[in-house]
Amino acid sequence: MIKMSFDSREQALQKTPPEQPPGANPAPILRDRTPARRVALVGFGTVGRAVAKILCERRNEAGLLRLTHICNRNVERKKQPWVPSEVIWTEDFGAILNSDADIVIELIGGLTPAEELVRSALNAGKSVVTANKQLIARHGPDLLELASANGCQLEFGASVAGGVPVLPALRTGLCGDRLHGIAGILNGTCNYILSRIETDRIPFSEALEEAQARGYAEADASEDLDGGDARAKLSILALAGLHVRISPGDIRARTIRGIDAVDFDYAAELGCTIRQISRADLKETTLFADVGPSLVPASSPFGRVQRNLNLVLTSGEYGGDMAFLGAGAGGDPTAVAVVSDLMFVAESLSAGPRPHRPLQLASPKVSCDFETPWYLRLVVKDQPGIIAGLAAILSAHQLNIDAVLQKPGFDKSALPFVITLEPCRDAQLHPALQEMSALPFALRPCLCLPILR
Amino acid sequence: MIKMSFDSREQALQKTPPEQPPGANPAPILRDRTPARRVALVGFGTVGRAVAKILCERRNEAGLLRLTHICNRNVERKKQPWVPSEVIWTEDFGAILNSDADIVIELIGGLTPAEELVRSALNAGKSVVTANKQLIARHGPDLLELASANGCQLEFGASVAGGVPVLPALRTGLCGDRLHGIAGILNGTCNYILSRIETDRIPFSEALEEAQARGYAEADASEDLDGGDARAKLSILALAGLHVRISPGDIRARTIRGIDAVDFDYAAELGCTIRQISRADLKETTLFADVGPSLVPASSPFGRVQRNLNLVLTSGEYGGDMAFLGAGAGGDPTAVAVVSDLMFVAESLSAGPRPHRPLQLASPKVSCDFETPWYLRLVVKDQPGIIAGLAAILSAHQLNIDAVLQKPGFDKSALPFVITLEPCRDAQLHPALQEMSALPFALRPCLCLPILR
Repeated sequence: MIKMSFDSREQALQKTPPEQPPGANPAPILRDRTPARRVALVGFGTVGRAVAKILCERRNEAGLLRLTHICNRNVERKKQPWVPSEVIWTEDFGAILNSDADIVIELIGGLTPAEELVRSALNAGKSVVTANKQLIARHGPDLLELASANGCQLEFGASVAGGVPVLPALRTGLCGDRLHGIAGILNGTCNYILSRIETDRIPFSEALEEAQARGYAEADASEDLDGGDARAKLSILALAGLHVRISPGDIRARTIRGIDAVDFDYAAELGCTIRQISRADLKETTLFADVGPSLVPASSPFGRVQRNLNLVLTSGEYGGDMAFLGAGAGGDPTAVAVVSDLMFVAESLSAGPRPHRPLQLASPKVSCDFETPWYLRLVVKDQPGIIAGLAAILSAHQLNIDAVLQKPGFDKSALPFVITLEPCRDAQLHPALQEMSALPFALRPCLCLPILR
Repeated sequence: MIKMSFDSREQALQKTPPEQPPGANPAPILRDRTPARRVALVGFGTVGRAVAKILCERRNEAGLLRLTHICNRNVERKKQPWVPSEVIWTEDFGAILNSDADIVIELIGGLTPAEELVRSALNAGKSVVTANKQLIARHGPDLLELASANGCQLEFGASVAGGVPVLPALRTGLCGDRLHGIAGILNGTCNYILSRIETDRIPFSEALEEAQARGYAEADASEDLDGGDARAKLSILALAGLHVRISPGDIRARTIRGIDAVDFDYAAELGCTIRQISRADLKETTLFADVGPSLVPASSPFGRVQRNLNLVLTSGEYGGDMAFLGAGAGGDPTAVAVVSDLMFVAESLSAGPRPHRPLQLASPKVSCDFETPWYLRLVVKDQPGIIAGLAAILSAHQLNIDAVLQKPGFDKSALPFVITLEPCRDAQLHPALQEMSALPFALRPCLCLPILR
């Protein structure tokens, strides 16, 4: 039965696919069939296993795909009784390159040796489906060119937002629009931590420990917390939706470390909450892009995303705004994205090799110099003249204060308080922040978050 | 700049496409190119004009589609200066059938003569893109068969939820899942009216008049208010997502007439609000389906959909829940869906005619006999023994009362009050409702809404 609320990843992770292939529902059919395509799976971790499950359970049903190889290190200890006996288990990727597999699924992640494997597969004329965000973020355009040059296909629908079909929607239902903006909550770990602080006002460190204990964050969570994961995903969305070639390293990533419960109290006074937002806006030849914690209205779609769900919003010249919400990670949802890509590639292959056509990508300048209102949170040793000192600096930089907020009840020796600024550009604000953080009563660098409306 | 909230249809409707083709952004390119396909547009109303605008503005850019014909009654008064001179304007659909157009866009709506036009086009070997929900809801499976038999394609992504790319997502990003449920807010008129009553507690009649004055509801709004529009859309979603062939007339549609401001007061006491929800759940050989006003948690994605936005939620065996939110109507968003379909068809045509394969659709029994908790709102002439009389009837039918709510301050001669019931099946409740409505103190038939959690 459909529920009015969402499955959480907890459910998704605990869910065990049935051991017997169910046969009740008919095949997906609003599509013509082609002969079964031979599929080799490289990487048999959580997602790989879930992909194999779907392919094995649905093979009599869909008839479009046939799993022929599974490649992994230490393959003997990976074998599963539910995998049909005709599937070849191997540790040797060369065996797959030399096989008659039509499509290679790359699920080992990372750049090495994934990049080399994908290039080899494409050069061998095999199409590739991958969930590898780092690989596509860094080498996506080149690999797409390589695929096209070899008359085969490269799909990466699972590389962003797991099972949320935003990349396929960019390829199909939104391709008739001219998109200019994409924004999203793309990192489930950050959203879990921030929405946990929001709900129970626990300290950042406690929320992080909880996320690690539940398996939502790794022991070294830097890639998530500091925005590296989200900016890789943002660069893939910009590639697919805005048709630009950018390096993920060119996108500014701000960490969520330093956000604490008190910031949610102040944000609430402004009708807002805090989320890690990734956003990209294409304006002529500049791509404005930023990843990091931001104030968003509590009542907005972004403000309402709880736990580790993902939300992606696209803005188009003709169609306006569209939002996509769902499980951004987890073996089964990500596997759906992989299998959907496989089905798409299998059907496309029936048309035979395509002529090589060069990609047409713009290479815009990447800037983080958004004009926006700002939230500045300082922690000071209370003494006379604080507001005057700060106001003098802001005034000297032509920055207008919108509000000063100071909630009661804090220790005067480490007093958090907030100044909000009227819209100004990032570059205008930055020198003022440096001066403010150098003031004698400032105990820590000023926390500075954009306020998105 | 991306905003954190949504464009409303008001903006979308007011938006005037630029008169000059902009040339800044590059073409959509994550796809190979094929020779331009010749496109004939039938129906030059709001959506037709918006489609033509996009095709004319983007023709140098996409190179995939070329508008060759526009067909409409009284075509002389329809002509627009921004349409290139080589486009042929005609009132004669036969001229299009006999032309070298590859794809016909049907945007005249309704069943007659749209059905005949679409059949003729498919029989002439031309692929068809349509936004016609009534046509697809009633004849979709037959027309898909006809398209397949003629080696051409039929796409209808714009027939549900306007620009929200849920049908394309079912075709691509979610095809790897096995969906079992679909639910949505599919009718923007109903949602506008209900969310207006919710926000300002205005009477139903005032909200309807306002919707009519703003052009969101027709003078005869029966098709919207009584659920006919939404159940046509639900049957299309069930076809595309659940692979079932059902007649829209088999889906129960309940009207939103009779909902009033007081129901939002009582719903709020239950943590809920009221929305027109369309839902379909496939369980073995039965499709449980219902369209009508329902209580949903105020904090759920459904409860938060304001004004005339659409929301569609899909539930899959592997991927869990996904939600799609956006503008469900308006010329430009709907045109994006049409143009996206055109691009998909144009690329598919490059593979040449496809072999005929029969559709595999299940034909489940359609039932509205959901098991759910219920909200019963009565209007009574206050007198002793009311609760006793109602409780006796419910008890005799083995129905358990969950709560009795009576807000103060109402006129005792027409007193609204509410009983909620623990979960029971629709069929179990119905005879009790009839008895309750026949009680001497009941001034109106009992309003009965499912409570969806």
